[in-house]
Amino acid sequence: MEFLRYNHAMLTSQRRMNQRWLLTARPHGRAREADFTWEEIPADEPGDGQVLVRAIYLSLDPTNRIWMNEADSYLPAIGLGSVMRGGGIGMVEESLNPQFAPGDLVQGLLGWQLYVVSDGRGLSKLPNLPVPLGAHLGVFGHIGLTAYFGLLDIGRPKPGETLVVSAGAGAVGSLVGQIGKIKGLHVTGVAGSEDKCRWMRDDLRFDAVVNYRIENLGEALRRHCPEGIDIYFDNVGGRILDAALGHLAMRGRIVLCGMISQYNSDVSAPSNLTELIMQRARMEGFLCTDYAPRGAEMYRDMVAWLASGQLKFRLDVVDGLKSAPEALNRLFDGSNTGKLVVQVSDEPVDRTRGAVN
Amino acid sequence: MEFLRYNHAMLTSQRRMNQRWLLTARPHGRAREADFTWEEIPADEPGDGQVLVRAIYLSLDPTNRIWMNEADSYLPAIGLGSVMRGGGIGMVEESLNPQFAPGDLVQGLLGWQLYVVSDGRGLSKLPNLPVPLGAHLGVFGHIGLTAYFGLLDIGRPKPGETLVVSAGAGAVGSLVGQIGKIKGLHVTGVAGSEDKCRWMRDDLRFDAVVNYRIENLGEALRRHCPEGIDIYFDNVGGRILDAALGHLAMRGRIVLCGMISQYNSDVSAPSNLTELIMQRARMEGFLCTDYAPRGAEMYRDMVAWLASGQLKFRLDVVDGLKSAPEALNRLFDGSNTGKLVVQVSDEPVDRTRGAVN
Repeated sequence: MEFLRYNHAMLTSQRRMNQRWLLTARPHGRAREADFTWEEIPADEPGDGQVLVRAIYLSLDPTNRIWMNEADSYLPAIGLGSVMRGGGIGMVEESLNPQFAPGDLVQGLLGWQLYVVSDGRGLSKLPNLPVPLGAHLGVFGHIGLTAYFGLLDIGRPKPGETLVVSAGAGAVGSLVGQIGKIKGLHVTGVAGSEDKCRWMRDDLRFDAVVNYRIENLGEALRRHCPEGIDIYFDNVGGRILDAALGHLAMRGRIVLCGMISQYNSDVSAPSNLTELIMQRARMEGFLCTDYAPRGAEMYRDMVAWLASGQLKFRLDVVDGLKSAPEALNRLFDGSNTGKLVVQVSDEPVDRTRGAVN
Repeated sequence: MEFLRYNHAMLTSQRRMNQRWLLTARPHGRAREADFTWEEIPADEPGDGQVLVRAIYLSLDPTNRIWMNEADSYLPAIGLGSVMRGGGIGMVEESLNPQFAPGDLVQGLLGWQLYVVSDGRGLSKLPNLPVPLGAHLGVFGHIGLTAYFGLLDIGRPKPGETLVVSAGAGAVGSLVGQIGKIKGLHVTGVAGSEDKCRWMRDDLRFDAVVNYRIENLGEALRRHCPEGIDIYFDNVGGRILDAALGHLAMRGRIVLCGMISQYNSDVSAPSNLTELIMQRARMEGFLCTDYAPRGAEMYRDMVAWLASGQLKFRLDVVDGLKSAPEALNRLFDGSNTGKLVVQVSDEPVDRTRGAVN
């Protein structure tokens, strides 16, 4: 299990200067650094009932791009001039809230900033698990909820069925494929590089892999799933969704998790939706946030699978908050490997560090 | 309840000359009469175990156009030079099959022809119900299965929810909307003419109607369903599907019944499929044929609703098999009103005739 770490300049909290990225322009197409404004100002002081949290890891996710649009999505659009929204993990440094104590590790929508003052709503303490901190971003949290409930609750797999997962080397896709293997599915992972395909095949033990950049997708899916696709877990939309639609098995299910190929454009247009009729198939969208109340189910299984070595994950850690705008685009050009996070400040020294196996 | 009848030339069976339309070219876009070849040849004689059926009504359905394509669908493509496939109702005239007797009324894929010889497989006797013969095409049969199970089994309505149905004045759509009303839904019917809208509003008692040719669809749907659309029953695809996708309620369901706007083209491309994710919504296709084993449920309810006057239907009867190719296009230009059927030969004289209420 690789746990990529880059050198990074430690950001001290002594001066309590905040650093943050404001969203100051609506991107058209890909987000550019010019859509954001970097600010260094004194951090707010927590008032009564509030906590001051120092961000350690910022999670970069495809949905960040959706939030930047003018239209509301499942969350309101980010107001221009506001701190860019983002999930992350941090440590409570000061607390005037009885529910939190200094040193508590918390997760929530901390935003693209070093310090955040919060009344505690939307913050949850990390469960105390014998895993490296990064696992809370790479395996648990929203990634885990998404992969676990998307596949099991929306996809409703039966042993022996075929599963195709796009972005199969991505944060969610790699978990989906592995959970699929654990559940007895025949798993085909689709990705855009030989390195990613090798990882899915050799380390994650997927049954088949497809490099969509060099292979004919339709042909490859027919070869790997001669009886059709029972479950297509869609992280990308676009032409991979098209190809999967064209090769659905009877009563197939398409789990619409994300459409990363479409987030920088205004359209998502599968050309053969009538296949859903012909194959009596179901296409269903979901959001991981709805499954937060059932998080314990996910933890129960995933912790065990992680401990037994059945579940592997890969973090792709980018150094420093300043890199966030540029790093976000790595999700869209396919150059990240594994869960993309930004190291905003140091992990506490008394926690497990380094590689996990 | 209007039961449109056109004058028609009675076709006698004395000479037992068959008349039939062969499919002899694959249409691109709309089917033209030139894609078919008319043939008059002596009818086959039934052999051992076979029956000779005289077609009375031929059902014209959007799916006929799908079957004409080169690609197989849920049924194999129709071979060039074969009799055009079509469902219908007929009367057994001769039987060397113990399961059928002369005079039996049967339904099945009789094809676009006056006489068909069959071994009885795929033929089913009409249930003996106190309804005009046309009701077996306009309310029961595949139309009834489609409307009843599509709405109830795929849509899973709850009283008080909103239902939008496209082609709401069509054979399936008009039943869907009425069943929706019976089940306590707020029903909005979408159609393409003032006459159809009037019929949906005044006779079928839909709560709201939208003429998509003159109204802004998105605006109208927002006005009639201010809390969003819980169920969209889609008969047409294309831009009406787009508009409905754009206004789905949380956990909305799209029942994909048909996409008539797309059958003459190669693409069906909703531009905002990500709405399924945002709204945690489900889009599911189905085929009425899968529900044939559960036909009794449909008959039980629909016969009662028909008798109580809660369910109305309209037949649009075109005279003579020769008109079939031209009439088929009326499904696609929106000029038919109600279930489109071709009268191939006379009804038996001892059955209920004329208007139903």
